[in-house]
Amino acid sequence: MKPSPTDASSDAAAPRRRGRRPGGGDTRSALLNAARAAFVELGYNGATVRGIADRAGVDAAMVNHWFGSKEQLFVAAIQLPIDPSAILDQVLPGAPEHLGERIIAMFLTVWDATGGGQLAALVQSVTTHQEAASMLRDFVMNVLVKRLIEAIAPDRTALRANLIGSQLIGLGMARYVIKLEPLASADHLTIIRAIAPTIQRYATGELD
Amino acid sequence: MKPSPTDASSDAAAPRRRGRRPGGGDTRSALLNAARAAFVELGYNGATVRGIADRAGVDAAMVNHWFGSKEQLFVAAIQLPIDPSAILDQVLPGAPEHLGERIIAMFLTVWDATGGGQLAALVQSVTTHQEAASMLRDFVMNVLVKRLIEAIAPDRTALRANLIGSQLIGLGMARYVIKLEPLASADHLTIIRAIAPTIQRYATGELD
Repeated sequence: MKPSPTDASSDAAAPRRRGRRPGGGDTRSALLNAARAAFVELGYNGATVRGIADRAGVDAAMVNHWFGSKEQLFVAAIQLPIDPSAILDQVLPGAPEHLGERIIAMFLTVWDATGGGQLAALVQSVTTHQEAASMLRDFVMNVLVKRLIEAIAPDRTALRANLIGSQLIGLGMARYVIKLEPLASADHLTIIRAIAPTIQRYATGELD
Repeated sequence: MKPSPTDASSDAAAPRRRGRRPGGGDTRSALLNAARAAFVELGYNGATVRGIADRAGVDAAMVNHWFGSKEQLFVAAIQLPIDPSAILDQVLPGAPEHLGERIIAMFLTVWDATGGGQLAALVQSVTTHQEAASMLRDFVMNVLVKRLIEAIAPDRTALRANLIGSQLIGLGMARYVIKLEPLASADHLTIIRAIAPTIQRYATGELD
């Protein structure tokens, strides 16, 4: 198993055993710490790649080397298992009337694969640390909602994005964390049929 | 401020300062500890009032004195701010086609009053302690779902109850914990109009 340099789950505590160049793990770890501090202090939009690199005492090119982009650095900093923006690239194109199905199918595919543990860890981090909630909130509003505005909804897009998010996080809690049956063991088709109409209405339907 | 003997949020660590009879706080605290152990070990249905009192080394009448019932003891043990079953008593009666509205209105009233802190604490407990998740799951299935089966849905009641729960916990996370805007500051009517149709469909509508 060879971890890639952008592997969000890699552990910076033992860089040398992985055969990276000396100091690589330290750089990655320093960038993650600097990024968390900067995102908390300045918000997602306010924090810059250069500013984060300066805090970490490394060249700004190291952000691209280790993470690829500010967004992927954020994803790693908040320990998301996937980049939600990359997910949007996959679900937004296609027939608008099937958007709900695509979103819920993708959500199940991603989280079934990574297992409930990571979702529980994320939720725990958000409930325990006000900064994590603040970073996540800021990212959702400035990246995800913006993408949704461009892609779909005619009006009240922020509310629509909130509503979609509320149903998805609730499904994640019920299926992976609390493990309510039958939802925890239901097949994808059952869940898609039950929840896709909700997501679809939140995205493009009447809200009044 | 006079805490009542069944006040779920009262702190058993300092009973004497509150002027209770000596040992009262110890009894309550012993019952809570015994209840948590019994619910984890035997499940909600398997645990009995007598068995819990025996574990705590007190008379079974003390459960009624301090908590009123096994269900209220559970609610206190898992630190729910409200008794969900009492809530059901209020929302289930009435026109079935407005059930979604009543559920979401009640949810907002209860959690707006208690604030986001308690919801965050509950979610944190569920994500951190597998036993808390197990107790909550068992309670939902054996008390809430059973009540819903009696009251409303013709088919697939457990799935319907899961779906309703998923949207409610997700709304709670979005509004009170992550504090997504505009959902966090939206008035009740806006949220009821947006989410009641979801709850209504999960409760009584087509799921396929």
